[in-house]
Amino acid sequence: MSVGKSISRVDAYEKVTGRAMYTADLERPGTLVARVIRSTIANGVVKRFHLEKALAVPGVVKILTCFDGPEFLFPTAGHPWSTDKSHQDVADRRLLNTRVRVWGDDIGAVIAENEVAAQQALRLIEVEYEEYPPLVTVEQAMAPDATQLHPDFPGNILKQTEFRIGEPSYTQAAEEEGLARISKTYGVQTVQHCHIETAVSIAWMEKGRIVIVSSTQIPHIVRRVIGQATGLSWGKIRVIKPYIGGGFGNKQEVLYEPLNAWLTTQVGGRPVRLELSREEVMACTRVRHAMDITIGMAARPDGTFVARRFEGYSNQGGYASHGHSIIANAANGFRNLYTQEKVVEAQATTVYTNLTSGGAMRGYGIPQLSFAMESAVDDLALQLGMDPLELRLKNAMPEGYVDPGTGITCHVSGLRDCMQRGAEHIGWAKKRAAYQNQTGPLRKGVGMAIFSYKTGVHPISLETASCRMILNQDGTMQLQMGATEIGQGADTVFTQMAAQELELSPEDIHIVSQQDTDVTPFDTGAYASRQTYVSGMALQKTARSLKRRILDYASGLLEKPADTLRLEQGNIRDVQGNDLMALDVLATEAFYSLERPLHITAEESIHCTDNTYAFGACFAEVEVDIPVGKVKVLDIINVHDSGVLINPQLAQAQVHGGMSMGLGYALGEQLLYNDKAVPLNNNLLDYKLPTALDTPELYVDFVETVDPTGPYGNKALGEPPAIPVAPAVRNAVLHATGVAVGSLPLNSQKLVEAFEQAGLLKKAGGENV
Amino acid sequence: MSVGKSISRVDAYEKVTGRAMYTADLERPGTLVARVIRSTIANGVVKRFHLEKALAVPGVVKILTCFDGPEFLFPTAGHPWSTDKSHQDVADRRLLNTRVRVWGDDIGAVIAENEVAAQQALRLIEVEYEEYPPLVTVEQAMAPDATQLHPDFPGNILKQTEFRIGEPSYTQAAEEEGLARISKTYGVQTVQHCHIETAVSIAWMEKGRIVIVSSTQIPHIVRRVIGQATGLSWGKIRVIKPYIGGGFGNKQEVLYEPLNAWLTTQVGGRPVRLELSREEVMACTRVRHAMDITIGMAARPDGTFVARRFEGYSNQGGYASHGHSIIANAANGFRNLYTQEKVVEAQATTVYTNLTSGGAMRGYGIPQLSFAMESAVDDLALQLGMDPLELRLKNAMPEGYVDPGTGITCHVSGLRDCMQRGAEHIGWAKKRAAYQNQTGPLRKGVGMAIFSYKTGVHPISLETASCRMILNQDGTMQLQMGATEIGQGADTVFTQMAAQELELSPEDIHIVSQQDTDVTPFDTGAYASRQTYVSGMALQKTARSLKRRILDYASGLLEKPADTLRLEQGNIRDVQGNDLMALDVLATEAFYSLERPLHITAEESIHCTDNTYAFGACFAEVEVDIPVGKVKVLDIINVHDSGVLINPQLAQAQVHGGMSMGLGYALGEQLLYNDKAVPLNNNLLDYKLPTALDTPELYVDFVETVDPTGPYGNKALGEPPAIPVAPAVRNAVLHATGVAVGSLPLNSQKLVEAFEQAGLLKKAGGENV
Repeated sequence: MSVGKSISRVDAYEKVTGRAMYTADLERPGTLVARVIRSTIANGVVKRFHLEKALAVPGVVKILTCFDGPEFLFPTAGHPWSTDKSHQDVADRRLLNTRVRVWGDDIGAVIAENEVAAQQALRLIEVEYEEYPPLVTVEQAMAPDATQLHPDFPGNILKQTEFRIGEPSYTQAAEEEGLARISKTYGVQTVQHCHIETAVSIAWMEKGRIVIVSSTQIPHIVRRVIGQATGLSWGKIRVIKPYIGGGFGNKQEVLYEPLNAWLTTQVGGRPVRLELSREEVMACTRVRHAMDITIGMAARPDGTFVARRFEGYSNQGGYASHGHSIIANAANGFRNLYTQEKVVEAQATTVYTNLTSGGAMRGYGIPQLSFAMESAVDDLALQLGMDPLELRLKNAMPEGYVDPGTGITCHVSGLRDCMQRGAEHIGWAKKRAAYQNQTGPLRKGVGMAIFSYKTGVHPISLETASCRMILNQDGTMQLQMGATEIGQGADTVFTQMAAQELELSPEDIHIVSQQDTDVTPFDTGAYASRQTYVSGMALQKTARSLKRRILDYASGLLEKPADTLRLEQGNIRDVQGNDLMALDVLATEAFYSLERPLHITAEESIHCTDNTYAFGACFAEVEVDIPVGKVKVLDIINVHDSGVLINPQLAQAQVHGGMSMGLGYALGEQLLYNDKAVPLNNNLLDYKLPTALDTPELYVDFVETVDPTGPYGNKALGEPPAIPVAPAVRNAVLHATGVAVGSLPLNSQKLVEAFEQAGLLKKAGGENV
Repeated sequence: MSVGKSISRVDAYEKVTGRAMYTADLERPGTLVARVIRSTIANGVVKRFHLEKALAVPGVVKILTCFDGPEFLFPTAGHPWSTDKSHQDVADRRLLNTRVRVWGDDIGAVIAENEVAAQQALRLIEVEYEEYPPLVTVEQAMAPDATQLHPDFPGNILKQTEFRIGEPSYTQAAEEEGLARISKTYGVQTVQHCHIETAVSIAWMEKGRIVIVSSTQIPHIVRRVIGQATGLSWGKIRVIKPYIGGGFGNKQEVLYEPLNAWLTTQVGGRPVRLELSREEVMACTRVRHAMDITIGMAARPDGTFVARRFEGYSNQGGYASHGHSIIANAANGFRNLYTQEKVVEAQATTVYTNLTSGGAMRGYGIPQLSFAMESAVDDLALQLGMDPLELRLKNAMPEGYVDPGTGITCHVSGLRDCMQRGAEHIGWAKKRAAYQNQTGPLRKGVGMAIFSYKTGVHPISLETASCRMILNQDGTMQLQMGATEIGQGADTVFTQMAAQELELSPEDIHIVSQQDTDVTPFDTGAYASRQTYVSGMALQKTARSLKRRILDYASGLLEKPADTLRLEQGNIRDVQGNDLMALDVLATEAFYSLERPLHITAEESIHCTDNTYAFGACFAEVEVDIPVGKVKVLDIINVHDSGVLINPQLAQAQVHGGMSMGLGYALGEQLLYNDKAVPLNNNLLDYKLPTALDTPELYVDFVETVDPTGPYGNKALGEPPAIPVAPAVRNAVLHATGVAVGSLPLNSQKLVEAFEQAGLLKKAGGENV
């Protein structure tokens, strides 16, 4: 059994020794450097460039502006394409934009022989604009007199959707007598992914086609979007994805590959490197959407939820990107954790502004939802005088639940066990009691939050994947996945799955780590925590197909019917389990037989038409320093039900990373803008990403269920760890202080203000209570 | 119709602009440089190294010697492997040899940070040897007191084979009364391939495996031989073949890849470049075997051949390489041009010496055979007083001939037409008459030679190939061949074949130019003029399989039976020829359908169990300057029957290259050795490779037959052009001067001696006749 073992990552040695080759390592001789000319306003129109001085800089090869670029509008979201127009992403930008909608918008590009010349040229370019008032907030953007940012979107509303499950309505259901009710708005801030490797690509032309090496989660989608953005036929584009230094969703977007692809065509196909600085990545790629979500809840005194309502506004920023899908996912997710009420309804609105565009980021709307909903549950528990754990146990999704909108079924759930185990770890009952009635400046509290998360995108969008396997002469296998390793360990778990299916040792599975759209089987890529589930299905199908071919070949050699043969532990065996022939002997024979040479390979694609819920809980214990508004996390645990774990140690590492991200979301990270929509802290010095020293010991536990739909009983694990941490910490602060903070992050400034407002602190100059 | 059109090479732009990336262009950061420590004797044993001074050179990383290297004996010939021991190549060398058998033998390696350090270290290394008398000639090597070079080969005889077809024997048949008879020994010299790109590879380790980029014709075979030489399991080796700068058979040998693969393991997997200088390539890789071939022929006065005999000795040099296969191919080929006689017999002997090892070189023994046999035919014609053209027309292989040894059948032959066309071009009849009875120092003559050549290696060895195709979203195709482009235009003709089979434009076929054994379908590689024939069969099978899948998918979309649908000109059509759906629409639907997504690919392997004869003739007109022994080629034409030409312009270019090689073989090239077996002119200054200025206008014509066994009616073309030129020139000199020169090259020294001997010139100091 290879599945379930904590084997070392297949790329561990390469990564630890620095040998793994990333995009920038694959630069070709004679590569030019491109830099983007960025708008210095957030809202307006480019009128004119003054390029003379820049063009005179030695080493400058070419300067292209928004007046040169192709006119095609294209979408950037890394979704599977659809031939149905209504399923297509919004195409609202050109490679270079004359109509500027964010600070740092792409209005031109300098191509130079080297970085210094490019930078020098950038500084010498002057741009004239017609400027409009920047729209920073959703309110500003929806105001009647606001500039319209995109022609097809009046009122700057990208999209608004709503649903109601149950009758008659939240309002009417909530009117039932004797119900506890809350209605409160929770706000989440703009944060950035902060992947280690910035956005980088190298593009050149070969045989009349574009070749582009890029740090991307979605090479096959990059191919399609370059085609759409440049007007090139998709087959003329080749995308290579080497090792990548993280993405977290920001590389599930096709941001600068199309521009770079076009740039190389403008310099005769010479290689061009387009690498963004950290500052550019933070200001000009994608962020997690800031949202304001008003949660309404009504419950009976015994805690039974009667009605729930979600009303959310998502600050999209300047371009559609993943757009409305993200708050729509939050709204849909609102249905899928508590499922007992009579009525649940939601309204979600996505509004264009002039901030950095929001896109996919680990959790895809669910971290935002989770903060709002799980804060609201604790706020309601307080009102009901109930234990928040008990309230959750009472209302959480039961096994057998079927989502009325999507049909996704909860076949098996470890959610209640996750809650119990987390509660045990944190000492829930004892500490909930012990931390009552604290006084003094330091107060402790415990809090929790739970979540559910889907596995892949079915049925909202297409789920398909493919895989190819090749039998080597020594009986080992090449494994070629369309799915991508992006640091999460995909290559390792695929290796284990293939070893499992073929009854070989993982050392005998040689996975191809690089995707190259010219030869790699099609897969939409790494997002939506889909790969071990969806791509795993393709792997399983391919392995079975390969095994059949091996046994068919064995049947010919051994003159026995194929259905009496098995491939077990590197041997062909009969039904009695006798070894008839070693696999390596068969393989060598298949390659070199003078009677019947056959190159045994298999390639299969699957259509995944299922989905399943992963679950989990976070429990945190905090100490709040009231006068300075500082939260210290004393203990924290995430307990996950992600089905069967393919590699427990990798799973644990995945959870560690997610928890760290969740702590940053909870306590410090926030991308700030001034009233001109100019980012203020788009760098790693001023943007408070938690470091190792900021991070407490992170505890992780798993409740392993066996999902009947997953290829190996597995469910989503990639994104979930980031979801429940922030509300758990917020609820612990509530427990410690009685103060129900309504927005993230819980930084000192906000907490001090909240404590003052709650009377725990006197206003400036006052004394502690 | 794409087959038969002279489209531009698919790699033309890359190669002309210098953009095509060759092995050395793919060097990785931090690559170390390796140089081979070469023996300074040709025959002996290494006793001791003195490395102290070399190790002290700054930048020297490691020095490894034959006392360190793995003990495995391995074969270097690029043949398909066989699980049958009797079919395996001779394994007679280690990576580094203690027992030295050629001058420049591989006895160690220096690994350094840079070229300068490596070279400096090489100069400082002292080696002590036990030295034995060098064996330069076959006679020396076969002498009773000669040192035995390899333990398993007494008398230094690598192998001797013989056959007789017909009864009772050559000697008896030739005794028939009234026959003209000749028995004469013809000698051919050692020449070298002189491919533009020298032998070069870059090796490193990744994920516990060896990765090696190499300039090779046979990446999949390199993988196997590295495994055999290093003891690594074959699946642990990955070979990448980028564009290569020629091979001509020298890169159908696995020479330095195994050493480099081992070297990287000795420096912790750091990348190592091992690039040979031109001097090393010429002295220490492979050469075309020097042979002495005695041809016996007996014919009736009307020219009918009655009996023929071949007795050949091949100077193998120090290591087996392709070994006896080459003279064996010559001996077998002796049966396959003239086929009317009662008895044909052959004896072939391959003898180890201390010269540079002989290996595969364009023609694989047939250029040597052709010189001997075609010279003999003209010598016999002279004796019979017959026109050599008429003699050949009378005796040449007829259609329907079946080789009694191999079963290879002559289904269709353009040989006689080739002769007629060549004769017309050169003005044969007129000039044969006109150039009788010349006097004076300048004399003209016309000569000819013909040949037949097999297509691939069946049934001597395994013939198998495979191919993979992928349908892109825009209805274009990825074409992934195991077969290799080595400069001959393979990628272009495969593109045309795929376009033909799928009824697409060649622009819609995107061939993958790089082979990578991790993902490339298996194929034994570029040799034996096999690829358009054997690999073409795999392509055809794959294209048909892909087409079936496309039509099956179309059947589902269109709700019509698949067998009523056709793929024609980028459209799905019904039997009436109505367009039902464009292929690109189908392709996009297949990728993104929410109902039935399917990634349409196909991969097939074939077992080729057939072979066929290609034919051709060369006609040359020369002017001989008798006093200075100089031959000027006034006119020359090759006329080929290679079946249907896939790309006539490329075919012509292929013939041009072969004719140039043939002229070098005829007139000037010769690798010389002193009596210590030390090469004397292993560099391009002293080795007289013809340049463009030395080359006359080269005329080419084709007789296009349609071969019933070839995938598109095609037959061998790669090697044949090099075969008939030398004997045609030699026979023209015979016609001009009456002097029947018995060996190549026809350089001034040899000709002057021959003319003196024939009385055309007085000996040194004498006067012209």
